[in-house]
Amino acid sequence: MTNKIDLVDLDSKLQQEPPQAILEQALSQNQNIALSFSGAEDVVLVDMASKISADIQVFCLDTGRLHRETYEYLEKVRQHYDLTLEILFPEAEAVSKLVSEKGLFSFYNDNHQECCGVRKVGPLRKKLLQLDAWVTGQRRDQSPGTRAAIPVVQLDRSFARPGATLLKYNPLANWSSQQVWGYIRSHNVPYNPLHDRGFASIGCAPCTKSIGPGQHEREGRWWWEEATKKECGLHATNIDK
Amino acid sequence: MTNKIDLVDLDSKLQQEPPQAILEQALSQNQNIALSFSGAEDVVLVDMASKISADIQVFCLDTGRLHRETYEYLEKVRQHYDLTLEILFPEAEAVSKLVSEKGLFSFYNDNHQECCGVRKVGPLRKKLLQLDAWVTGQRRDQSPGTRAAIPVVQLDRSFARPGATLLKYNPLANWSSQQVWGYIRSHNVPYNPLHDRGFASIGCAPCTKSIGPGQHEREGRWWWEEATKKECGLHATNIDK
Amino acid sequence: MTNKIDLVDLDSKLQQEPPQAILEQALSQNQNIALSFSGAEDVVLVDMASKISADIQVFCLDTGRLHRETYEYLEKVRQHYDLTLEILFPEAEAVSKLVSEKGLFSFYNDNHQECCGVRKVGPLRKKLLQLDAWVTGQRRDQSPGTRAAIPVVQLDRSFARPGATLLKYNPLANWSSQQVWGYIRSHNVPYNPLHDRGFASIGCAPCTKSIGPGQHEREGRWWWEEATKKECGLHATNIDK
Amino acid sequence: MTNKIDLVDLDSKLQQEPPQAILEQALSQNQNIALSFSGAEDVVLVDMASKISADIQVFCLDTGRLHRETYEYLEKVRQHYDLTLEILFPEAEAVSKLVSEKGLFSFYNDNHQECCGVRKVGPLRKKLLQLDAWVTGQRRDQSPGTRAAIPVVQLDRSFARPGATLLKYNPLANWSSQQVWGYIRSHNVPYNPLHDRGFASIGCAPCTKSIGPGQHEREGRWWWEEATKKECGLHATNIDK
Repeated sequence: MTNKIDLVDLDSKLQQEPPQAILEQALSQNQNIALSFSGAEDVVLVDMASKISADIQVFCLDTGRLHRETYEYLEKVRQHYDLTLEILFPEAEAVSKLVSEKGLFSFYNDNHQECCGVRKVGPLRKKLLQLDAWVTGQRRDQSPGTRAAIPVVQLDRSFARPGATLLKYNPLANWSSQQVWGYIRSHNVPYNPLHDRGFASIGCAPCTKSIGPGQHEREGRWWWEEATKKECGLHATNIDK
Repeated sequence: MTNKIDLVDLDSKLQQEPPQAILEQALSQNQNIALSFSGAEDVVLVDMASKISADIQVFCLDTGRLHRETYEYLEKVRQHYDLTLEILFPEAEAVSKLVSEKGLFSFYNDNHQECCGVRKVGPLRKKLLQLDAWVTGQRRDQSPGTRAAIPVVQLDRSFARPGATLLKYNPLANWSSQQVWGYIRSHNVPYNPLHDRGFASIGCAPCTKSIGPGQHEREGRWWWEEATKKECGLHATNIDK
Repeated sequence: MTNKIDLVDLDSKLQQEPPQAILEQALSQNQNIALSFSGAEDVVLVDMASKISADIQVFCLDTGRLHRETYEYLEKVRQHYDLTLEILFPEAEAVSKLVSEKGLFSFYNDNHQECCGVRKVGPLRKKLLQLDAWVTGQRRDQSPGTRAAIPVVQLDRSFARPGATLLKYNPLANWSSQQVWGYIRSHNVPYNPLHDRGFASIGCAPCTKSIGPGQHEREGRWWWEEATKKECGLHATNIDK
Repeated sequence: MTNKIDLVDLDSKLQQEPPQAILEQALSQNQNIALSFSGAEDVVLVDMASKISADIQVFCLDTGRLHRETYEYLEKVRQHYDLTLEILFPEAEAVSKLVSEKGLFSFYNDNHQECCGVRKVGPLRKKLLQLDAWVTGQRRDQSPGTRAAIPVVQLDRSFARPGATLLKYNPLANWSSQQVWGYIRSHNVPYNPLHDRGFASIGCAPCTKSIGPGQHEREGRWWWEEATKKECGLHATNIDK
């Protein structure tokens, strides 16, 4: 499946499929595949995956700055699905250096790339070196600036091992927020309680805020920066383009 | 304008008009007219009215159980628009009797009509006896159950003086939530901070809660009751029909 | 007992007694007596009284501006002790006039006497006209400025009916905060959850704040005013002196 | 000063001294000495030290689970005193292993030693290997169970380099909470806002809670465990004894 032409074909085929079918194919066609769970509404993928197989790899990134509600929620999901949830943590030295030199809120001055680099991208990179494929909850409707064109399946060149191929599946690419929440409510999927307090998107506590009626969900993330830069680096390919 | 046929004509004419034009007509054609302000996004009417005349009557209902944020917000609006904001308060005896007999949260058991009757409808009735017309922020998109058909102007038979006519204007009837919030943001209208914490609709503190993504705004009001009963009695005509 | 000399004697006798004994005497020697409950740690009196008689009169003042936690707590106490809790409410016209003219937070500018007058003193006065005696939770250690000398029993000249006598009992006068909380914890008395969030004294929401370590409890009330004025008027005699 | 008899002498001499004098001696007599700052009321040591020298070593332990208020406060202190605040962080692998295997709240089941070991003791141990002496904010009145006998200066055998000596100074050992807060208020020292919300002691968010009137400050820490175990391991010598 590493062939680029095949991948375009596969993508246009999967574009027609519902998330469950995409996920099923992804899980069956890749041995070393894991689901990235952010602690937000991408829990629908955890729910869908748990109905496909009892034995899925799921990981999440604990940046050391998540909301207390998110820590409680991650634990809830772990127990609800009887999941082996791998929780990645940033390197001591890198965090210590950054915050000892620039303080605990440097992202408000600098921009968030450095802090995301240390707390998210670093640990993710290390994890992805062990994988052939990963699954994310990215959706086109999340960000007009950076996610309008994400495919259902793509080559992830940013995080692939040298000489190897890393596939990235976005089974929710074509789902709207409406559909995601329809699924959550009709399947009684446990969700992060911050969503009921005005949080649309959920990331680190200092870099996420609740939004008001008529605001786009991405306005609650890194609100001091421009819309076209609002990616943390996990989805670097979105910006490269 | 008390003629029913004329009113239907007037309504179908006003249906084509933007809220500002409706409000302008309402204010110019009725001497004894007041704007009812709830402390929520109907602040757009206060903003529009303040641009038409420096001297508008605005009243609101302090039920004695509003959110602290709403009290602060009412004060903010009063000062921002240099408004004479008449704040109505429920009758001591009626409140005291209800809560001494049934406790402070009887509405969760009984239903909210009795408490709304004492805290909202009573004070409103007294006020409307002094008026020829009133203006509300009702919108069709607020409630599929009870507000789908509200006209722009109507006879208010529930609250009219005996033998007299009371007109009720709903200038926002045809506006969507989207349009209301577009106005608020583009005109920098001060809004209730609860809106940024997941509150779509705002009423009394024990009877309003924040809602999550994909929920209808009315799901945050009297959530233990059926959708078709979700009116407090201020807009009794919506339910009569 | 209306004789002044007798009262001084009675007071010095009661000074030696524990709160329970004082309360027992007060309840047995006055037919028309009621307990004033503020929704704070004076709940110990409700607990003590409920062990003396199943049929005590208890009232509290709902000013229309209490904390949500206090409303919930009042209801909890009502149910826990199966109490007839009379909840007094301020006069509609007086509140409406004050807040329509001066706004909802005039006390921060004016001082709190006018608002307390309308929301607390007025309703209390009306209630006390029906009584021969009332019981309060005042303690000497609450306020160096105004409560250092409160007796256990006293004539209440501020609120007595013309030509009649009103007795005021303060059974906790000599108890320390320590003793009150010792009682609450050892008897599992339900208490206002605000006490666990730094609130020592509890009154209206806009006029009460939590305090830090080493602050006196009265520093959390009407903090923009001088210590010697920190009475709402319920205990006017404290200031007259 | 490594002689044990000399140390007992030094301790009994320092017992008579005020914190500032103890701190001054500690800083002048040890070249490689650092102050451990917890983000709570031990800020008085930071304030005192800043008045002795512009160039003090201060470190704190970011466990990855502090309150948002504490992160903001650490930053505030850093800026207020123009401090080089070294922020230590736990090892990625150790945290990841613990929480991936046992979940994010294992301390509620197991006890807090394992989590404190990974998040606090490990990083501290690494830091103390570089030092000859450290300064802490421990006080005798903090914990009847574990801190009643802490000296002003002691040998820290738990964290010393092999073959070397590590001194531990507790300049506040004999100060009461009252004195600490007296200092904070009279010197306008910035303090953690959690202290105004009922928090006496402050540690990790899931393991600290606010306390009510009449509770001892240590009741807000690891409240599901016995009083004699309430040390995180930083002060292991307190328990050894």
